[in-house]
Amino acid sequence: MTVRELPVLDQPEVVACCAPLAAEVLTAPEADTLAKQFAALADPVRLRLVSLLATDEGGAVCACDLVEPVGRSQPTVSHHLKVLVDAGLVTSERRGRNVWYATVPAALEALRTALAAR
Amino acid sequence: MTVRELPVLDQPEVVACCAPLAAEVLTAPEADTLAKQFAALADPVRLRLVSLLATDEGGAVCACDLVEPVGRSQPTVSHHLKVLVDAGLVTSERRGRNVWYATVPAALEALRTALAAR
Repeated sequence: MTVRELPVLDQPEVVACCAPLAAEVLTAPEADTLAKQFAALADPVRLRLVSLLATDEGGAVCACDLVEPVGRSQPTVSHHLKVLVDAGLVTSERRGRNVWYATVPAALEALRTALAAR
Repeated sequence: MTVRELPVLDQPEVVACCAPLAAEVLTAPEADTLAKQFAALADPVRLRLVSLLATDEGGAVCACDLVEPVGRSQPTVSHHLKVLVDAGLVTSERRGRNVWYATVPAALEALRTALAAR
């Protein structure tokens, strides 16, 4: 019998259920933090990885399944995933021989809120 | 009598009324375009400028009113605004001696959508 692992990863912080109704002007410390996260997204391969993770119905994806869709080598994909993890946008978990990745919804929501109009 | 100019700028493209209900995986060309725009946001001063413009109730702000809130010199603020304009995130319009700036809502919405979960 084959046991299928459930693709659910622990989230490193509490996830807000809803976006705020109105955006407020960013403070300088908030802008510092968010600018580093936007820098992690300033690369087309990393953007596509975030897009693949964010739109996956299971919520988490094995690194082995991310190589083909972005058309880069496995070491290149691993490097880009590490940048996203270091920026706090993606979380990872080793399961046996594979590492699974998922987005950090609260972090992406904070970036979306920073781009929201009043 | 003092005549007050209305703070409305032409928008360079059609503005979508609503965000799509579900995000889709980015194509490589889409990711290329968006990555350049995220690079423009990878700076805390530019992020705060976008935040000030996006949350302004009037919809457009004179450059002269952006210097004090971000605490940078006028030439520095002008440089950062030019980067945002070149990236297609902000639009500008000269009115007499001043230049007024506004966000491009459709561009910010495209960035927000790229960060949306399914």
